[in-house]
Formats: sequence, C-alpha cells, structure tokens
Amino acid sequence: MKPDLISNDSQLNSSGKLIHLLGLKGLPKEQIENILNVASRLLDTQGNLKKSKVLDDMSVANLFFEPSTRTRNTFEIAAKRSSAQTINVDLANSATKKNETLMDTMHTLKAMQIDMFVIRHKKNGLPHHIANNIEGIAIINAGDGINAHPTQALLDMLTIQQEKKSFKDLSVAIVGDIRHSRVAHSDIHALRTLGTKDIRLIAPGYLQYNGEVSNNLKLLDNLDEGISGVDVVVTLRLQKERMLAAEIPNEKVYFDHYGITNEKLKLAKPNAIVMHPGPVNRGIEVDTAVADGPQSVILKQVTNGIAIRMAVMEVLAQAL
Amino acid sequence: MKPDLISNDSQLNSSGKLIHLLGLKGLPKEQIENILNVASRLLDTQGNLKKSKVLDDMSVANLFFEPSTRTRNTFEIAAKRSSAQTINVDLANSATKKNETLMDTMHTLKAMQIDMFVIRHKKNGLPHHIANNIEGIAIINAGDGINAHPTQALLDMLTIQQEKKSFKDLSVAIVGDIRHSRVAHSDIHALRTLGTKDIRLIAPGYLQYNGEVSNNLKLLDNLDEGISGVDVVVTLRLQKERMLAAEIPNEKVYFDHYGITNEKLKLAKPNAIVMHPGPVNRGIEVDTAVADGPQSVILKQVTNGIAIRMAVMEVLAQAL
Amino acid sequence: MKPDLISNDSQLNSSGKLIHLLGLKGLPKEQIENILNVASRLLDTQGNLKKSKVLDDMSVANLFFEPSTRTRNTFEIAAKRSSAQTINVDLANSATKKNETLMDTMHTLKAMQIDMFVIRHKKNGLPHHIANNIEGIAIINAGDGINAHPTQALLDMLTIQQEKKSFKDLSVAIVGDIRHSRVAHSDIHALRTLGTKDIRLIAPGYLQYNGEVSNNLKLLDNLDEGISGVDVVVTLRLQKERMLAAEIPNEKVYFDHYGITNEKLKLAKPNAIVMHPGPVNRGIEVDTAVADGPQSVILKQVTNGIAIRMAVMEVLAQAL
Repeated sequence: MKPDLISNDSQLNSSGKLIHLLGLKGLPKEQIENILNVASRLLDTQGNLKKSKVLDDMSVANLFFEPSTRTRNTFEIAAKRSSAQTINVDLANSATKKNETLMDTMHTLKAMQIDMFVIRHKKNGLPHHIANNIEGIAIINAGDGINAHPTQALLDMLTIQQEKKSFKDLSVAIVGDIRHSRVAHSDIHALRTLGTKDIRLIAPGYLQYNGEVSNNLKLLDNLDEGISGVDVVVTLRLQKERMLAAEIPNEKVYFDHYGITNEKLKLAKPNAIVMHPGPVNRGIEVDTAVADGPQSVILKQVTNGIAIRMAVMEVLAQAL
Repeated sequence: MKPDLISNDSQLNSSGKLIHLLGLKGLPKEQIENILNVASRLLDTQGNLKKSKVLDDMSVANLFFEPSTRTRNTFEIAAKRSSAQTINVDLANSATKKNETLMDTMHTLKAMQIDMFVIRHKKNGLPHHIANNIEGIAIINAGDGINAHPTQALLDMLTIQQEKKSFKDLSVAIVGDIRHSRVAHSDIHALRTLGTKDIRLIAPGYLQYNGEVSNNLKLLDNLDEGISGVDVVVTLRLQKERMLAAEIPNEKVYFDHYGITNEKLKLAKPNAIVMHPGPVNRGIEVDTAVADGPQSVILKQVTNGIAIRMAVMEVLAQAL
Repeated sequence: MKPDLISNDSQLNSSGKLIHLLGLKGLPKEQIENILNVASRLLDTQGNLKKSKVLDDMSVANLFFEPSTRTRNTFEIAAKRSSAQTINVDLANSATKKNETLMDTMHTLKAMQIDMFVIRHKKNGLPHHIANNIEGIAIINAGDGINAHPTQALLDMLTIQQEKKSFKDLSVAIVGDIRHSRVAHSDIHALRTLGTKDIRLIAPGYLQYNGEVSNNLKLLDNLDEGISGVDVVVTLRLQKERMLAAEIPNEKVYFDHYGITNEKLKLAKPNAIVMHPGPVNRGIEVDTAVADGPQSVILKQVTNGIAIRMAVMEVLAQAL
C-alpha cells in the first residue's frame, strides 16, 4: 500500500480531540499549531527544557519492534521529564516469541495500567491497526515502515518556526531518498498543512516521491536547481542498499550529486538553515563543514525533539 | 526433590511476620487474606490501580535468571507505582559470568542498598536458599522451577474473590500440565488454605499432579467430567515438549481433549469464570471465543497481578 | 601511552572547581577530601545511605562501552538515590553502529538535555578526549583502559578513612596485577596525595607497576615481605590471560604466591583490613576465610561506592 493512502482519521475523536498521534496527513492545522505552541512553552529562552509534572500519574511504554536506541531514548527522556513512569518492553525476549498475538500483548500491557504506547514497527500502518483495535489508551507512532514519523516532522516544523517565523513564504528543499523516507512523507504533509508555498523534492528518479501531488510541490533531480534560493534544506539519511538500487554506484557519487557542501549551500538564501534527522553520515549526505557550520540546526532539532515529544504526550494526556 | 517438600518456613519471622514471599504452602490463611485485602484497597471501583507512596524510600531489584519480560514488567510496574526505585540486574552480562558466586552477588546487591529482590530461577528452592543465607532483605519468589509462583496464585485468588466472594463453597477445576506447573502448585496450596471444598485437577496421567493429596482434591483425566458444574476454570500454559512426552501427538489432539471451548464451558455453571496465567496459546489451551468471551477474566488477572505485587511489597516493607 | 602520562588538567576549571572527574593524578588534596566529606555525610551512623534531592533537576546517562553490570548498577543506583533521571544508553544497538562518530553521539545526548555522563571505555584517555571536546556537561570516568578508575579509588579511600582515620602514618600494600590495573593506578595517586608514608606494590615482575616513582613507593615481589606490618591490604582482580603472560602457570600457583590467606594476614598488623574491588575470585586473590572474615571490608566498600558516586555527582552538579 502506498503510505499516502493510510488514513489517520482515528487519531481524532468525535469531538475533534487528538487521542492518538498516528500521522500528519489530515491532521488539522490547529492541532499541529497547538503541539508547536505547547512545545515552545516548554523551552526557556536559552533553548533549554523545563521539567513538567503533567504526566505525574501516567505510565508510558516504549514498544520498538525496529531497533532504534536514539529515538527510543528521546521518548524515554521526554516521558521522564514529564514525570511519567516509563517502561521499555523488550520485544526480543517478550511474549510475542511465545506466540502471543500482538493485540494480546497490547491488551495485556493496557491491563498492566499503561496509558500511552510509543510504537515503532517496520510495517506501514501498524500503529493505526492497534489504535483501531483497542480503547482507552493513546498510541504515538514513532515511525511505521516508510509511511510516517510524525514526531520527527513536528520537531522539524518547530525548528523551522524558531528560525523562520512564518511558513507561508518559505521555500523548503528536501534532499535524498524521499520515496522511502517516513520523515520526508511526514514533513511534506506538515509543510502543506502549514501553507508552505514552495516545497521542492530533490532526488534521483528511483528515490523520488511517488505520493499525492499538489501545486506547491516540485519534483527535481538536480540539486543545484533545487537548492537555489531556498530558506530551508532538509537532508535525509541514506540507506546504502537503496542508493545501490537507485544505480548510484557508491557513496562518493551520491555525495557528488546530492551531498550538501558549503559550495552548494551558497546557492540557497544566505540565511538558509540545514536540517538532518540524524544520525548524520558525514561526507555522504552532508559535508562535515556544513554539519558543524553556522547554518546547521541539527543539534537544535535534537532538543526540539524532546520538547515535541513532551508536548505530544501532554496533549494526548488531556484526552485520556 | 518434589516441589511440595520444599519448606517455606523461613518466610515468617519468629513473631509470625512475613519477611519473604517464598511459597503459599504453609502460609497462614490470615497472611493470604491480608495480602488480598491490601491489594483490594489499591484498586478503585473501576478496577483501576492507584499509585502509592509506601515504597518511597525502598529499592527493588529484579533478578530474572529465566527470561520473562512479562512477569518482570509486572514487578517493575508494581514497584514504580509504589514509588520504589527499581533496578533490573542484567544477569547475562553480570558478575556471575566472572565467577562471582550467587551469594556474593546477593550480598553485593544488598550492600548497594537494595531492600527487596524479585527472583525467578529454573531451580526449585533457589529463592529459599538465598533467603536462608542473607539477612535484612526481602525475597519475593517470582517463580522457581516447577515449585511455586506465589504472586501468580495470589492474583488468581484475588480474581476469584472479586467474582465469587466466598472460597468455601466453590468448585474449581485446574486443567492442563499440572505436574510441571508452579502456577498450579501454588494455586492448589492457596485454594486449600482458603478452604475450597472441591478442587479438581484435570490432566492426562503423565501431566497429572503428584504432590500431597487431600480430601478436597480430585484427580481426573476427563475434561467433561472435571468441568461439570464448576464455578472456576483455571487453564494452564502448555509446553510443547511436555505435551509430546505425555504422548499427545500434536496441539490439535490436546485441544480436542483439554481445550476450553464454549461448548465445554456449557458443562460448567452458567456464571463460571475462565482464567489463564498468560500468555494464552489461543486454540490450544483456550478457544479464541472463550478467551475473548464474557466469562473470561484473563485481563482482570493481569491488572490484579499489579495490585497483588504492590500489596506483597507493601506487606514485606513493613517488616524491613 | 603510559597511563601516568595522561593529564587530568581539564577536570578543573579556571577557578579550580571540579567540572569533570577524569582521574586522581593531579587532583588537589582538598578536592579529594571534599568528596570524602560529602560522601561521609550521606552515610548514617549504621552505615546506611540516605536519599538526597540534590540532582532533582538533572539527567545522568550511563555510557558503558565495556560491559560491566556491576559498576553501571552502582552509578545508576547512586544517581537515582540523588533523585536524578537516569538513562542507560545501549551502545550495542546505538547509532555508533550506524557510523555516527563518538562526538556526534555525545553532542546529540547533550542536546537531549543530559547533564552528566558516566563513561567506561577500554581506551586510555577516552573520557579526557570527550571532556576536551564538549562543553557544559560533566564527565565521570568509570574506568578507562588501564589508566584510571577514580571513583573506585575514592571509595577505597573512604573505606580506609572510616577504619583508620589518618592516612599519614599508614602502611598500605597493594597486591596483584598492578601494571594493568586502573584501580591500582588511581589508588596510588590518591594515597600519595593524601600523604600516605608507605605504599608497597607487590607483584611479580611482569605485572609490577611501571609508572611514576616516588619516595613513599616500594616495589616488591615477595608477599611475606610486602605484607609485614601493614595496616591495609588492597587486593586486585586477576585476569587469567595476564597471569599466564606473567609466567604463572595456573591459579593455584598464583594463590600460593600472592593469595591472601589468614596465615599471610597474620604478618600484617593485627587490625589490618583487607580490600578488594570485587567481584572476588575466591581462592585466587583472596581465600574464602579472609573474604568472609572479620578483617574484610569488601562489602563496606560496595556501600561506600554508592556514597562516593552520589558525592561525586553532587560536587559536579554544583559546577553545572
């Protein structure tokens, strides 16, 4: 199934309240802005994060079916900074091995008084499936297949907002393997909803976006053309096997065509920012001089990631 | 050693206070009832669990020498909901690999100011051995070999009490591999102590109970006969290798003989409840229609499991 | 590089405040005494540890590149008893596998709002390298290669202080593989700084100390001579491969020459204490009768280890 076909309708209840965060497709602008506002309030003027007591009576479980220490850590830190109890469910050794069905595991964890589940899974739409089959708990999609990674896109939006204020007049370039990137897919939905007038997707054909088109979306395969005059450059993590499938013989060739160097960055606006979801492959997606340079906001994204996850949990807790 | 021969005497101190929870054999009725009362108090009228501050100054360590994410999670959640500090000791990478003796590990953890130890081990009586060789800490047996699993039996009793009130007039059927089930062994001791008049153990010969007999205990190999008119059906998890050793050629044959279907359940009392320690093998021990049906209390057992573990820790903390 | 050549200068800021704990070489006496005083205050008269709120707003991450459940647990327990949030970064599955550089990982974790990092690594000087390349966080060296293990040495000093009061007039024997022991290296620096007049290093040639010499340091290969009249015997953990490289054919031969038995201990002062960093190889470094005997302070060291780690975190937090 094309990821863009998966509906996120069940993340809103009948009165329009957010009860899960499954994806940004179809999420109303006010919901996105509300999460950005809550996250901004959690950051002090130095960009440091305050602690909060809002999840004092809640339990949050991390269910990562795909390994990702980094994203799991950010959710665990966010939950703890919100005063929630946290539990990491070790799925490698867990009951799913003993043939328990996934929904049995979910119902069991709910019966253990877990309120919120952070789920990462390689299957598109798996968090949606769970959300549709269990009540009274909140699901946060921490990345499903190539479909969506909504908290990553929200932290990207928060970072852009901090640097650029209004989304309307921006030109944003997204560079890399867009077709298989849940980050890119969620970014595109967020940027569209926030009214960004010029979204440029820069990738070789095989890695190019194949989702819903829209007026403000341009598909390009040339980086020089794509990056010219943009305000924001979003780079994506490259997976080697997909680079090869795209007939890019090696990392050097990819870097020559799509790597962001200071030279390439000169084609963008002088105050353009460079983003990456991390971890960065230095010298493949982004040159070290750019990653560590004054236009990089990569580490700001990390801090914003904690703020956004705290904000999402706070908003979801209000509906529990 | 037959599990029924292992003494739990050291779990009570000279004034009769509970200082460890090793097994239910020999545990006085008042002790069992006290734990059930404390657990009931922790549940609100909707069956949800309150948080408690009673372990605010305590540290609880999970020592699982047998893998069991599920049971470990319940103890961790229970300790955290009681405001204890928790620590999961990773025994795969721990000092026992470096030839440290088990008792050295225990004394070291005690010196690290751990107050309570939750221990699971494949060896019958291992928690008893530890309890007999170290002072000033509390041991909770989370399952030792085929001997005992006292918190599971206590949560089973809490569940029965919620549904049936008095234990005296009940008929309870326990179905499955009773001989090798620490759950069954602890259930039998608890039901006896609480005065249940009719306990029926239903299993093929090789899997049948070989512990202490008593008047209120009936051994049967026919499910139809055993389940007739009972108030409670306790099903057990089946292990494939034991099924084969019992000359049951495959899971289908087991299900035909001992699986609980709605048809079989009609032989029990109309308001009979069905229990399972989880995770359920659907279509082997219990039919899906029964597991998800109105007479199943399997998910209630899970919530009661947290309440019982909080209650046991609270009672043990009073003696520390 | 010889471990003694690694400078710890960057652990003090320009006003002489402790901002990292990298090693005890060069650490001023007042700094050591301050940590010992803070730790002593955390212990009550029964030798039990109080809880503290001093790290209430802090996050501590454990980064163990070498496996050590035991030491990791002590830091986790210490951080939690100080009310810090803790996170164990699973380095086996982490981004370093995805080619992220170590410094990228560190900057990322800092951006996740981690304040303090506890680092163990097989490479000498790695914590120093990190401390020199990132600002605004505190690094605690939990053991780097054969270079230093400062918290172990500080807990050793706390234990000696509790038993012996003044360091000046003491004779201290350190026995075992001194050359490759970061514990021994840190102990030697601490004892020197605290003014111990007689430090005896007892080892076969190949395992003997090859660092900086000083007047109060004696190198010996005979245990009887070395242990005669000492107040303190510090034993070290032996690694089999190094024993063999030192031409000691087996563990029995090592024990005959360097193992501490009650007979050998009679050569020391009557009230001499025996220490070991744990886990003890009974019958190799220390005889069981000694390890469990009245002169052993091995379990006191464990409790002091928690107190010292709480104290180090408290002191470092003051500079953050």
